[in-house]
Amino acid sequence: MADETATTGLLGFKPQLVVPGMKAEVAVQFYKAAFGAKELRRVAHPKRKAEQELPLILSAELKIGSSFLLVNDRFDDAGEDGSTVASGGGILLRLEAEDLDAVMKKAVTAGAEIVGEVTEYEGGVCGKVRDPFGVVWAIAAVGKKCPEAEA
Amino acid sequence: MADETATTGLLGFKPQLVVPGMKAEVAVQFYKAAFGAKELRRVAHPKRKAEQELPLILSAELKIGSSFLLVNDRFDDAGEDGSTVASGGGILLRLEAEDLDAVMKKAVTAGAEIVGEVTEYEGGVCGKVRDPFGVVWAIAAVGKKCPEAEA
Repeated sequence: MADETATTGLLGFKPQLVVPGMKAEVAVQFYKAAFGAKELRRVAHPKRKAEQELPLILSAELKIGSSFLLVNDRFDDAGEDGSTVASGGGILLRLEAEDLDAVMKKAVTAGAEIVGEVTEYEGGVCGKVRDPFGVVWAIAAVGKKCPEAEA
Repeated sequence: MADETATTGLLGFKPQLVVPGMKAEVAVQFYKAAFGAKELRRVAHPKRKAEQELPLILSAELKIGSSFLLVNDRFDDAGEDGSTVASGGGILLRLEAEDLDAVMKKAVTAGAEIVGEVTEYEGGVCGKVRDPFGVVWAIAAVGKKCPEAEA
């Protein structure tokens, strides 16, 4: 699909639900029961909290019909995620791109604002912008090891 | 993908952004400029408001990379949409299903609550549920002429 990515290097996006109250596991179970979701993969948070019985979910990828839904716990120590939830109602859109900087610059030129700083995950890079309509886009560079953006 | 739909008859979902302030057209132009979105189709609201220069958007379907995003104006005369925006931050997930009643019942059994009433659009039927994590799912029966759920 070269024509689709020629302009912006954008490959596509998946909705990501950020769940407060350490209930991402409950959410995953709900989507399995309610919509027959299949869990494709899960990445646990490396910083397991001492008071937690279960590790927090950094990213669980579900498939509902032919569509994908990412679910993760909201982390108190991640300021950007906190502000995302407060302003975006829990759902952000996780966009995979070939060139993170180019995509973020283009979005900002069009009217989006940068949220937080570009973050590294296991050697990968992710940035966030909030568009003029309140939607937060988490943009991950393709081919980098950004956990929530792996294929 | 018979195995994926056998349990629930769910085919998939698309994120839908409900835009307040009659700015859906502005949002469509933003996504074109920021992310190279292509507009695949658009359905104007049949009740054009007298004070409006442009017809409101009942549903515009955009493609960003390989992903789909629905954008529509928020209508003051649609109570369910109003409550959706207030609680869901503007994004809901529009799910296509083979059997609307069966999917809604299963979701409610799992813990979702029904939002508003089942609505008819041009002979099609759509229902909404809010899940325990604040996500509103608009469920459209496949094969019916539900405008925001057409292929």
